Amino acid sequence: MARPHTINWQDNKLYLLDQRKLPISVEYKCCETAEDVADAIKSLLVRGAPAIGAAAAYGLVLAALKSTPETIREDLNRAANLLAGTRPTAVNLFWAIEKMMAAAAEEAEYSAICRRLQQKADEIMELDVESNRAIGRFGAELLPDDARIMTICNAGALATADYGTALGVIRAAKEAGKHVTVYALETRPVLQGARLTAWELMEDGIDVTLICDNMAGAVMAEGKVNAVIAGADRIAANGDTANKIGTYSLAILANWHQIPFYIAAPTSTIDLQIKTGKEIVIEERAAEEVTHIAGHRIAPTGVKVYNPAFDVTPAKLISAIITERGVFEFPYEGKLG
Amino acid sequence: MARPHTINWQDNKLYLLDQRKLPISVEYKCCETAEDVADAIKSLLVRGAPAIGAAAAYGLVLAALKSTPETIREDLNRAANLLAGTRPTAVNLFWAIEKMMAAAAEEAEYSAICRRLQQKADEIMELDVESNRAIGRFGAELLPDDARIMTICNAGALATADYGTALGVIRAAKEAGKHVTVYALETRPVLQGARLTAWELMEDGIDVTLICDNMAGAVMAEGKVNAVIAGADRIAANGDTANKIGTYSLAILANWHQIPFYIAAPTSTIDLQIKTGKEIVIEERAAEEVTHIAGHRIAPTGVKVYNPAFDVTPAKLISAIITERGVFEFPYEGKLG
Repeated sequence: MARPHTINWQDNKLYLLDQRKLPISVEYKCCETAEDVADAIKSLLVRGAPAIGAAAAYGLVLAALKSTPETIREDLNRAANLLAGTRPTAVNLFWAIEKMMAAAAEEAEYSAICRRLQQKADEIMELDVESNRAIGRFGAELLPDDARIMTICNAGALATADYGTALGVIRAAKEAGKHVTVYALETRPVLQGARLTAWELMEDGIDVTLICDNMAGAVMAEGKVNAVIAGADRIAANGDTANKIGTYSLAILANWHQIPFYIAAPTSTIDLQIKTGKEIVIEERAAEEVTHIAGHRIAPTGVKVYNPAFDVTPAKLISAIITERGVFEFPYEGKLG
Repeated sequence: MARPHTINWQDNKLYLLDQRKLPISVEYKCCETAEDVADAIKSLLVRGAPAIGAAAAYGLVLAALKSTPETIREDLNRAANLLAGTRPTAVNLFWAIEKMMAAAAEEAEYSAICRRLQQKADEIMELDVESNRAIGRFGAELLPDDARIMTICNAGALATADYGTALGVIRAAKEAGKHVTVYALETRPVLQGARLTAWELMEDGIDVTLICDNMAGAVMAEGKVNAVIAGADRIAANGDTANKIGTYSLAILANWHQIPFYIAAPTSTIDLQIKTGKEIVIEERAAEEVTHIAGHRIAPTGVKVYNPAFDVTPAKLISAIITERGVFEFPYEGKLG
């Protein structure tokens, strides 16, 4: 595939595609320690719920490789805490760390732990690609032959091990021979839609038009959209879904225009521990993400800013949740377990 | 008033505050010809429906002053066409040009025409300030004592001769002793909210928080807003209102959250010639407004872009239209004439 991969493990090092620099330049950051990986997640060098889960998994492999037979348990615990503390909203991060720590707990010997963690991280990566392919197949069936899709943020190959969730559905629809056009919302403040989704789809030869977030309603009113698909960072047991800020507004706009609104996510994004979206912790990020773009100030010095990175879309606004296990329709109670 | 004025007539020259450079620097452009004024309107150096109307009025004064007794009619017609061709959506532009041309038509002699045009332009400015003060008084009465307002774009002193329409209501509410907090939407692509509204309100000591456009729904869901107020570029006879792109989405979000949605505009913004919003021409602007911010590219080279500068909010989503003649409530048929 011509498209560069987000997460690359080679010679016991983790090479992460620096998504902050796309599409201006394609650069990789070489991570040699769990600390490097934690910094990469915090700074959005790597982002997207499944991708940060997979990156954290390799972060634990790095922690093990740098450790010693005497300190391995302690070092793994420290690395797990460090990685878990990077970002609060996407549950895939905690899911991956838990899987990895459970795998490590099953081995007694240092080299076996290292080997096992390596295998588990590879497995998380492979599982994610398989899941995305399945999500794509299930999702593509929901779309009309002339699919005019709107999407927010980047739930693509860049946000996952490969192929993508929301963009996986778009890719699969195209592969299934459907006519596909996409409106990508630029997705302020970090512009993942403009920088990542537009780039990914252009690289794949998929017809994409970039718009600002506040144009979504007008574009819908013009009849240019017949499905909205977004990814997810955490799905509660009742189907309430946390995703990139703006997803909630988009769901209301889709509802107003009677356009189906889909969430595409692997089941690793479902958090049955929480009943509703009210319990989901929403990360608030620095004011500078809003007041500065590419280092250039665009707002008055000292202006007060509110910058929640996510919002919660209530289940009733979600027409269906597309997972690798199939498509679930509202109401979701008892179906997502 | 500490706040710099948008439109300043001095020694037979028009000094326009360069709004593209705010809030980074406060600079004035000296316009000596109607062409200078047309360029300033086209390039968004001066923007805001009432402000571009007033600027165009002085553009005609400049055209007259540069003309001769022999060519005055011809020169005025040429300048009127040039100014009318700058931007299509805001009706105040055409309204002001029409008023000016009607005034000129009433005079026979060159120096009388010049004098009359000068008086008329000053009158348009004064009328706008008076209108905004009246809009402010009427609008402030609609707001609760604890007014938590969301606004889009800049319908402030910068968009008008002074005081503002939507921001005029906010100023008047504060002057009336109400507790006022404002959420300003940054308003992509040109960021009038971040650059102008946040700045204007901070200069006036009004509590303002800057958010990205896609945060509007989440902020409403958190109960942080009890009124939305926007300006207008053109209001049809049935109340359908063209305003900055994003206004339509915002009206739907307000409706979903049962928050009143107000339009604040002088009656010069009402266009009785058109029955509904369907007839309003929506200006589409250059892709670079979306793909570049402050000269820095933020999207892939060659990406397709859709960049409508305005959208139309249907009358049924507008709780009331606040004008200098009073407050009109939905339905608007027969009330706005």
